Amino acid sequence: MRILCANVGSTSFKYQIIDIETAKSAVGNLAVSTTSLVKGGVERIGNSPSAFTHAVPGKPPREGDIDAPTHTDAIAHAMHLITHPEGGCMAHLRQLDGVGFKTILAKGYWRSARITEDVLAALEASTPLAPMHNPAYIASIRAFQKLLPRTPLVAVFETWFHQTIPDYASEFGVPRFWIEKHDIRRYGFHGASHRYISERVPQLLGRDTEVEGISKPDSSEGLRIISCHLGGSSSLCAIKDGKSIDTSMGASTQYGMIQSTRCGELDAFAVLYLIDKEGFSTDEIRRQLIEDSGLRGISGTSGDMRDVEAAIKAGNDNARLALDTYVYGVKKYIGAYIAALGGVDVIAFAGGIGEKSATTRAEICKGLEWCGIHLDAAKNRQHTGEGDISAKDSRTKILVVSTNEEIIVARETARVLTEL
Amino acid sequence: MRILCANVGSTSFKYQIIDIETAKSAVGNLAVSTTSLVKGGVERIGNSPSAFTHAVPGKPPREGDIDAPTHTDAIAHAMHLITHPEGGCMAHLRQLDGVGFKTILAKGYWRSARITEDVLAALEASTPLAPMHNPAYIASIRAFQKLLPRTPLVAVFETWFHQTIPDYASEFGVPRFWIEKHDIRRYGFHGASHRYISERVPQLLGRDTEVEGISKPDSSEGLRIISCHLGGSSSLCAIKDGKSIDTSMGASTQYGMIQSTRCGELDAFAVLYLIDKEGFSTDEIRRQLIEDSGLRGISGTSGDMRDVEAAIKAGNDNARLALDTYVYGVKKYIGAYIAALGGVDVIAFAGGIGEKSATTRAEICKGLEWCGIHLDAAKNRQHTGEGDISAKDSRTKILVVSTNEEIIVARETARVLTEL
Repeated sequence: MRILCANVGSTSFKYQIIDIETAKSAVGNLAVSTTSLVKGGVERIGNSPSAFTHAVPGKPPREGDIDAPTHTDAIAHAMHLITHPEGGCMAHLRQLDGVGFKTILAKGYWRSARITEDVLAALEASTPLAPMHNPAYIASIRAFQKLLPRTPLVAVFETWFHQTIPDYASEFGVPRFWIEKHDIRRYGFHGASHRYISERVPQLLGRDTEVEGISKPDSSEGLRIISCHLGGSSSLCAIKDGKSIDTSMGASTQYGMIQSTRCGELDAFAVLYLIDKEGFSTDEIRRQLIEDSGLRGISGTSGDMRDVEAAIKAGNDNARLALDTYVYGVKKYIGAYIAALGGVDVIAFAGGIGEKSATTRAEICKGLEWCGIHLDAAKNRQHTGEGDISAKDSRTKILVVSTNEEIIVARETARVLTEL
Repeated sequence: MRILCANVGSTSFKYQIIDIETAKSAVGNLAVSTTSLVKGGVERIGNSPSAFTHAVPGKPPREGDIDAPTHTDAIAHAMHLITHPEGGCMAHLRQLDGVGFKTILAKGYWRSARITEDVLAALEASTPLAPMHNPAYIASIRAFQKLLPRTPLVAVFETWFHQTIPDYASEFGVPRFWIEKHDIRRYGFHGASHRYISERVPQLLGRDTEVEGISKPDSSEGLRIISCHLGGSSSLCAIKDGKSIDTSMGASTQYGMIQSTRCGELDAFAVLYLIDKEGFSTDEIRRQLIEDSGLRGISGTSGDMRDVEAAIKAGNDNARLALDTYVYGVKKYIGAYIAALGGVDVIAFAGGIGEKSATTRAEICKGLEWCGIHLDAAKNRQHTGEGDISAKDSRTKILVVSTNEEIIVARETARVLTEL
């Protein structure tokens, strides 16, 4: 099956077409093999010129600037490139078997689902909790409905992997009717990434020798993983027996770890205080806590970790504070999840920061030695790609994992479509 | 010096007069000995009949109902009892050397301070962050100013002990101007209790053999304590070398652990969502998150742990969930603080729940064995008062401590007054 995986940001559209071969196993449909046919994206949508990239294996990659005032324009341009006689990867868009969207949140639709008008209405109703993502997803889904009226569209919600979190870990201490009428609780996000990591770790440990994409149902048994997805947005997940039992994001993707420009955990009374003292609307507060907060808020400079690191080198104390606050936050979550899991077998680092910043990984692991968790400083420094960076005598393996959310989106989309 | 320690709640006034002998040591004024002259209180102020208690050592205790529509009435009644020819403990109120208030929050006044109009204005300005406490404290301070115009009044702020928390642990990921203009950060509370525990633990370990109230400055050196104040309100504190390095409450006392009727940690976007969907005012949201939340919110019954435990026995699933969520929250903070401290030498339980609920202590410690932390199940079950409940082979001592906030308030008040 050829699945187009759509990853939509507020001002970006990324796509990948994955050819996925599935086979029925005792535990359901699983991928047997996957091939990526094209990867591309459009950045700075609505802020001309918008930059695009488009890469088909075996062909020269294309990139340049276009005029893309809306997501619809960006998608039309991408579809044009996909079917381009020279640079494309297929003759007709109808050769796609489905489109899978890495959607964030539609209350009531916690798992993957075929997209209907009901799903779109739920996305719309959940917009106050996902104001960055949901409007962009709705616009993109509408664009695909017009471009590909006969191709099934599937929403693979980021909340899906966290449906196994027990109530005592997902509950906030809010009034009863917030829970019963509004279903306010920790939904959790980054589900595709944490799910991938939950399957990849047993493979890296040699517990699972199957072809990539297939995971034996018992390969995770007894395994306690703390998955650290640290990148533009960051979250941690405590995984036991392959299942999420806790995660740092909440009812929104802004909760938990401080992130690039998002606030993370924050005393709600401070928000009410600012509303009273400054007269801000809820929309304005949401904008500030999404765009001006996190690493950017504390550093007073940028939300990009590379800029923060450059500012530290230039002697910026607030940038140093932003990095220290970030590292301390990850460290505290790791400690909390060790207690939640009753111990930890693997700490897995993934995402742009988790995979590439050896310094950040080293600072996070400092202080965990008391529990017998030891990083190998040299291995960590020299490391590239995936693998083990823990010291020989460490009770816990520390792994670097290259996460792959698209494979999960493609597989889930294929699963939903073949079950129909 | 005779110090009246005033502990003011939104509908209560508790008092204790402590005779405190101070001596100048190399590290400043410290208490040499303390004697409690009277303990009493008035409950249900503003909701007639208001119940009072009044106990002078060596005299029959008094209790009954009075009409106390305001804090001023309750205080006037208490002062009447204190100077009562038969049931009292002193002839004239002017024999008091000072009144110390266990005040919560006045932004800009983080440490103990003699009460001036500036302090009262700062209390007033901080009311949105402490809406339960500050109005009651302002009313009570005004009442004492009238009753005792010549007696010095001192505010011992609960934020005081947490001034040593490093910036990276106190910072929230908010926009720069929230930090610079509004000083939004984790202030921390329960300072008197955590301070007491930080001094009491080395005494219980036999590291400090001095008279109670005196703590040798090096008795805490190298000691890593996780202080769990679990009661009507709950917070945890990570203490290193006798200094707070992190704590669970935030810019308000509602943050951190779920509490009796207060929310604890909560995704700020859920609050904005409720404001939008229900049209609530900030005052109404504050009321709900203070009065209808926490154990009461989740259980749907009561915020009192005794009622929650009774409801569990009666088969109430939401009550079970409330207790499980509470226990899980403490467990996660302990794990987080082990990582923050780089290990832990002592876990100290205090407060109504921490001191008295063996079951809760046992459930909290379950899962920490991986780190070498072992509770002695039998010792824990049979324990009363203060002492060690850890197993012999535990790397970490688990102690029960009877906290004593009043001694800290009296000592701080004496220190402020003798320094003047």
